[in-house]
Amino acid sequence: MIRVGVIGYGHWGPNLVRNFAELDDAAVAAVADHHPERLELLERRHPGIRTYLDHAGLLRDPSIDAVAIATPISSHFDLAMAALAAGKHVWVEKPITETLEQARRLADEADRRKRVLVVDHTLVYSGGVRKLAELIDAGELGRIVHFDATRVNLGIFRDVNVIADLGVHDFAILDHLVKERPVAVSATGAAHFAGVPEDVANVTIFYDSGTIAHVGLSWIAPIRFRQVLVGGSRKMAVYHETDATEPIKVYDKGVALHPDAAHPGRQKAAYRSGDMWAPKVDGTGALRQLSQHFVDCIRNGNKPLTDARMGARMVELIEAATRSMGARGAPVELTQPGDRG
Amino acid sequence: MIRVGVIGYGHWGPNLVRNFAELDDAAVAAVADHHPERLELLERRHPGIRTYLDHAGLLRDPSIDAVAIATPISSHFDLAMAALAAGKHVWVEKPITETLEQARRLADEADRRKRVLVVDHTLVYSGGVRKLAELIDAGELGRIVHFDATRVNLGIFRDVNVIADLGVHDFAILDHLVKERPVAVSATGAAHFAGVPEDVANVTIFYDSGTIAHVGLSWIAPIRFRQVLVGGSRKMAVYHETDATEPIKVYDKGVALHPDAAHPGRQKAAYRSGDMWAPKVDGTGALRQLSQHFVDCIRNGNKPLTDARMGARMVELIEAATRSMGARGAPVELTQPGDRG
Amino acid sequence: MIRVGVIGYGHWGPNLVRNFAELDDAAVAAVADHHPERLELLERRHPGIRTYLDHAGLLRDPSIDAVAIATPISSHFDLAMAALAAGKHVWVEKPITETLEQARRLADEADRRKRVLVVDHTLVYSGGVRKLAELIDAGELGRIVHFDATRVNLGIFRDVNVIADLGVHDFAILDHLVKERPVAVSATGAAHFAGVPEDVANVTIFYDSGTIAHVGLSWIAPIRFRQVLVGGSRKMAVYHETDATEPIKVYDKGVALHPDAAHPGRQKAAYRSGDMWAPKVDGTGALRQLSQHFVDCIRNGNKPLTDARMGARMVELIEAATRSMGARGAPVELTQPGDRG
Amino acid sequence: MIRVGVIGYGHWGPNLVRNFAELDDAAVAAVADHHPERLELLERRHPGIRTYLDHAGLLRDPSIDAVAIATPISSHFDLAMAALAAGKHVWVEKPITETLEQARRLADEADRRKRVLVVDHTLVYSGGVRKLAELIDAGELGRIVHFDATRVNLGIFRDVNVIADLGVHDFAILDHLVKERPVAVSATGAAHFAGVPEDVANVTIFYDSGTIAHVGLSWIAPIRFRQVLVGGSRKMAVYHETDATEPIKVYDKGVALHPDAAHPGRQKAAYRSGDMWAPKVDGTGALRQLSQHFVDCIRNGNKPLTDARMGARMVELIEAATRSMGARGAPVELTQPGDRG
Repeated sequence: MIRVGVIGYGHWGPNLVRNFAELDDAAVAAVADHHPERLELLERRHPGIRTYLDHAGLLRDPSIDAVAIATPISSHFDLAMAALAAGKHVWVEKPITETLEQARRLADEADRRKRVLVVDHTLVYSGGVRKLAELIDAGELGRIVHFDATRVNLGIFRDVNVIADLGVHDFAILDHLVKERPVAVSATGAAHFAGVPEDVANVTIFYDSGTIAHVGLSWIAPIRFRQVLVGGSRKMAVYHETDATEPIKVYDKGVALHPDAAHPGRQKAAYRSGDMWAPKVDGTGALRQLSQHFVDCIRNGNKPLTDARMGARMVELIEAATRSMGARGAPVELTQPGDRG
Repeated sequence: MIRVGVIGYGHWGPNLVRNFAELDDAAVAAVADHHPERLELLERRHPGIRTYLDHAGLLRDPSIDAVAIATPISSHFDLAMAALAAGKHVWVEKPITETLEQARRLADEADRRKRVLVVDHTLVYSGGVRKLAELIDAGELGRIVHFDATRVNLGIFRDVNVIADLGVHDFAILDHLVKERPVAVSATGAAHFAGVPEDVANVTIFYDSGTIAHVGLSWIAPIRFRQVLVGGSRKMAVYHETDATEPIKVYDKGVALHPDAAHPGRQKAAYRSGDMWAPKVDGTGALRQLSQHFVDCIRNGNKPLTDARMGARMVELIEAATRSMGARGAPVELTQPGDRG
Repeated sequence: MIRVGVIGYGHWGPNLVRNFAELDDAAVAAVADHHPERLELLERRHPGIRTYLDHAGLLRDPSIDAVAIATPISSHFDLAMAALAAGKHVWVEKPITETLEQARRLADEADRRKRVLVVDHTLVYSGGVRKLAELIDAGELGRIVHFDATRVNLGIFRDVNVIADLGVHDFAILDHLVKERPVAVSATGAAHFAGVPEDVANVTIFYDSGTIAHVGLSWIAPIRFRQVLVGGSRKMAVYHETDATEPIKVYDKGVALHPDAAHPGRQKAAYRSGDMWAPKVDGTGALRQLSQHFVDCIRNGNKPLTDARMGARMVELIEAATRSMGARGAPVELTQPGDRG
Repeated sequence: MIRVGVIGYGHWGPNLVRNFAELDDAAVAAVADHHPERLELLERRHPGIRTYLDHAGLLRDPSIDAVAIATPISSHFDLAMAALAAGKHVWVEKPITETLEQARRLADEADRRKRVLVVDHTLVYSGGVRKLAELIDAGELGRIVHFDATRVNLGIFRDVNVIADLGVHDFAILDHLVKERPVAVSATGAAHFAGVPEDVANVTIFYDSGTIAHVGLSWIAPIRFRQVLVGGSRKMAVYHETDATEPIKVYDKGVALHPDAAHPGRQKAAYRSGDMWAPKVDGTGALRQLSQHFVDCIRNGNKPLTDARMGARMVELIEAATRSMGARGAPVELTQPGDRG
């Protein structure tokens, strides 16, 4: 039985508490929050969980194996460092930290202390993304050459821009599905309201192989729409996150090249159209899957899918895209695995 | 009765012939095409129309008032110049010419000879775009601050890239709806097939006022999807080109700013959600509207909505976006009305 | 504070417990269920609620004001009678009883004892149906002349047929929206699996005014689909229960009659087509609305919208439709308000 | 080359002329219509086709092999009889005749004279219905046990009721897909406008095997909707006529029976859910397919799919359903193959 302490009982914390409570091999032992009224709400809903107004007490509790951090981003680094120092495994909300440098230090610290650190890039664990990964791994789509995601809604404006808030979901999906590492990013966007961060953005991510990924983001769209298109050399798949019935559609469509009779030596592209197929997708919630994955990694000593290194890659993409957005799309290069001394 | 001669009876020409034949105050007098078998097909379908294997004969026919040019882009400039020189009014398929310089020379020539020159940016004349313009002019949406268009399908690959082929439609709609002139453009894209132009692209167009427009384009999408979102300061409108039933939806939704209690002096954005309204849209075909507009402009001496100057602006956008796409999104500035010496 | 006892903690009971717990002016005081393991589950989720293996103990508890019955239909009559005899207000799952005779006896008993008895026809309290009722009451649709509902899914087969399981929802909506009482019913259907009740049915309900209502039902449809169309003399409204974004659409469309030039003295019908409008719909859950309504009726001594008389009408419709279905659609007459001696 | 004469150039006739003109092995030789202005319109569109104000002249023309009748239903019988008497093959719009008796006499006459008589039940020849038939024949769906069709729109009111106008399409599809002959029919409906036939109807068709088919029809629906659901013992298929992209969806879903542990000797039904599959559907127009089929039958001496006997079955269904509708759903038995002396 893994005993979990949750820090932060605001927006996301209640989901974490409910979720860990439903696992067979985990239990919520304690919750910490600065706000007494939030702890009262918790006690009404879940009597029997120990509460702390200060996270330090929670971290000192030797019966706690793992700590889940659901606080504002600016506090992630210090809390996660303290939790690792206290010997706890760590779950941290996305994005892992405010800066790439912090993310790398956290990753190093987790490695050094041999603790599991998972970043809550929830969507990587959704039934839809797991099915996409399965299709890609099985070679069903061929080589991935194109990726296009749209994530828009009438939005809750936040302190971070729309890239850090919404885009990071697609960056995580992309990181999971495309094995290649991106080399550069270009982004455009706009802030339509004085004193509020950018509310629309379009991000293009470049790969050396020629693969290209585009992510369209908006907090000012009248309709909620979330779609991921994966274009392979053999087939194409579209994932509609909000379609409960047939979230994934695989199209046996594509482009075929033929010698161009009119221009010897050149090729002509023509499209090819076949059946569509919507595989059954596991409906288990993504957060539930992630919770179980975290507990399993702690038990088995495995690296989580969305570990601190992956979390650091996400922060780098956010930083680079935000920089490009400030320069009207001028491309920004990304560091490569070998780039760090 | 305006007598029209059509040059080119390949892909688009047959539509022009059928369309002019249905107008009350126009008639198709002649058709020219290099391919004898195309002229045979025409004769079977429309006996009684004079045919020419060479456009020169057609241009010499003094009974012809106007010439419609439906040939490859590379021939547009020479044919249109010759038609103006022969004193004809001119209809030319989009884009008007290959280069901005040619487009400007054509515009000057049409002005000098006081002939009507219309560029076939058909969608500007569709019921949906006319309704959008009507809503904007009536102030229904407030000030336009955001524009996002998607135009994707499994595509007929062409000699020009996807920006010139598909994007130009959205550039034209944008030019018609947004009165302000753009100042810069950033574009990204990729060519997935050797020897074939770019098949996906994302273009962002910047305005000095802070308005921003994005256009997403693809020839490698499994599903045909055409959508234009217009975000105003009061309401938002979405136009689904392929929805025959309710192509335009107006959302009484938006963002409202309130003083931020937590941060004095700052504002907080919250969204506002109300009814949706789908106005009835005129179902008359866009090509039919454009044909009538051309004939009316000839009769009344008016400037067409999509005249040569507008056509030149479209070519400049295509050129600039293509340049930016070659530089991974680095922004390219556009000339402004006062820029030409 | 209204103190509620819940009898039955199987399929629907947990929703009732959670729901009453969230009301400001109600509390769940006790739960009774024959199954010890269900009570254990309850205690884990909601420690502090008294539990009974036998409902008799719960009914004897003088601190309990109201009893909610969430047990199989066959037990509804006896439990509700016992609850009324113990002086409790009663909430009973739909349908109220197995037979019309029982339903009428319960209605009489609730009247005699001056207790509130509400039948859980939840959908009557949904935001969508409340909006439809509002539109009708405001005269927006004109006189209601036509009603067509579809309620299909791949179904949980039950002991009762698809009319009693799914159809009763639409009968309740219809009863709420159409003020007139129906006079006859015709139904067809089929049982495709030996030993299992009818899994598809089509029911038509007749009114003396000429208004007609059709309800299509299926447990063997591959896709969940729930739609209610209300045709008025001025406009038409369609309610898509599963559309979270725009559940109600009002069409300014209809039929207009004109004198028929070709046949003097006869009329010609032509259709009229205008805008569509999707009013904002309150998203508060239907069960939450119903719970509050029950508590309010107890406090204020009002009759609930879905009282025992209404519940009895629903049972009569189920009985009559089932009888007609057994006779391949032969119509069955319904009793009228004045029919009971 | 089959030379076709078309009688009637009103609503449907122009489609027939255009359609036969496009076939390689047929030509339109003549058109007859009482209205001189219609013949003028034809001459403008298709110069070179002989015209008759009276059909008798057309029927006397020995160069004409086949006659297509596109006139009001009341004239079908006499015109088709005259055409057969003149030795012509016959194409007649649906429904074949006004009465069952007439339909049978026409069928006998066509047999006696060894002429091809095809009834224009166009939808049987659509790509979607052909694909459904293919799936059924291949055993993909298992045994057909359930059929449900919806065909509604804001309608052109006609002289016949909505069953004869719209329902006949689904009766024809049903006749083509289900090999068994129906034994009885129940229908309900209403006429909402004085002096105009029934504008809504629901028809249930019974088979001895227990298979059941329902058809929902309306001229007063705000949205055009055309759907055919075919429920098989193995899988289910849904055909959306107006979905150009994926008209047919095959669901690997269904119901499985298990012994009911709680009730020994009884079975329990549970649903089974798997993938969905949308096979590619041939986009060739149904009218084009039917025209070619007619020409092929003439050349090869084959019986058409929708011959006069089939047309007679359709008339019987319309008659029986209309009779049942007049009796509020009371079932009406159908004659069986052996019933005719």
